[in-house]
Amino acid sequence: MERLKQAIVERGIVLSEHVLKVDTFLNHQIDTGLMAAVGEEFARIFQQDGITKVLTIESSGIAPSFMAASKLEVPLVFARKRKSLTMDEHVYASRVYSFTKRTESEIAVSKDFLASGDRVLILDDFLANGQAAKGLIEIVEKAEAVVAGVGIVIEKSFQPGREQLINSGYRVESLARVASLENGRVTFVESEAPIK
Amino acid sequence: MERLKQAIVERGIVLSEHVLKVDTFLNHQIDTGLMAAVGEEFARIFQQDGITKVLTIESSGIAPSFMAASKLEVPLVFARKRKSLTMDEHVYASRVYSFTKRTESEIAVSKDFLASGDRVLILDDFLANGQAAKGLIEIVEKAEAVVAGVGIVIEKSFQPGREQLINSGYRVESLARVASLENGRVTFVESEAPIK
Repeated sequence: MERLKQAIVERGIVLSEHVLKVDTFLNHQIDTGLMAAVGEEFARIFQQDGITKVLTIESSGIAPSFMAASKLEVPLVFARKRKSLTMDEHVYASRVYSFTKRTESEIAVSKDFLASGDRVLILDDFLANGQAAKGLIEIVEKAEAVVAGVGIVIEKSFQPGREQLINSGYRVESLARVASLENGRVTFVESEAPIK
Repeated sequence: MERLKQAIVERGIVLSEHVLKVDTFLNHQIDTGLMAAVGEEFARIFQQDGITKVLTIESSGIAPSFMAASKLEVPLVFARKRKSLTMDEHVYASRVYSFTKRTESEIAVSKDFLASGDRVLILDDFLANGQAAKGLIEIVEKAEAVVAGVGIVIEKSFQPGREQLINSGYRVESLARVASLENGRVTFVESEAPIK
């Protein structure tokens, strides 16, 4: 998605070879026009897939997912992050390890909001090691619902998340695929035309 | 807003005289059609007020604020909650006490995303004791920006938040004003027509 890649190049900050900061338009301040376009693009990609729910994770996943779910005319459910593991029989939960923060946390969704008939589109802001996506997939499958696909705003293609998900049989659609953050510069995977 | 009040009556759960649970359409699962209408209503109410930014707080504030900011064609900024108080010179921060959880936390916004020329619309899902709204107001005023108004999805009018904000000179616009949760039943303030 050209407009998104342009925003990454012009407004993203490369903090290291592994860290791209996009607080100006996605993770803290939200460019509502751009995120509406991102949501519409996800809705276009998955419009034929009989999606019944969009599932994301708080907080940064909510804005790009809202317009996608709205256009697909389905509810949006966001998984909650919890620091401590709690015994709660009425949720589907999974553990997610953060390589960035080096902590494990739990994510959970109430059993009221996922059911065996659902075809679920999982959306998230970033895909790197795939921990959050795998946690969301585990929750959907505990509910005996179907993972119709995984949509990602920004994929760091040099990290193993995408490949692992695809090898496990999931469909992954990323709107921007970052090949490298080396030398303080963003380059995208070669199948896509360069911006500059 | 009639459609919102109908959702509260039909899909909200009164847990106690003080607690209304709306996880089915606002706080965990999001009714995207209803939240789009909520956002459009905020945009309509504040369209003449020269808003330059919408400010909310993660996570439940993001969905209803997204469409409001989108319709007003301004960025949405969400304050981050932090458990521990950290020394960070590059944020505007304030402390917020939660009467529900009986804990104090810090909310923070990067100095990059609020400036003295801004006219800020503060939006949040609930108004009860007004702690979150006051924290957001403090952040806006630390940035020497102007609080153009406070928009609330569901106001618990029997708690003191609204009155305190109005007495301090702020404009408060709530889309549903709950007068009471007594006897397991939701009643709205009498200036508004009853649903049932």
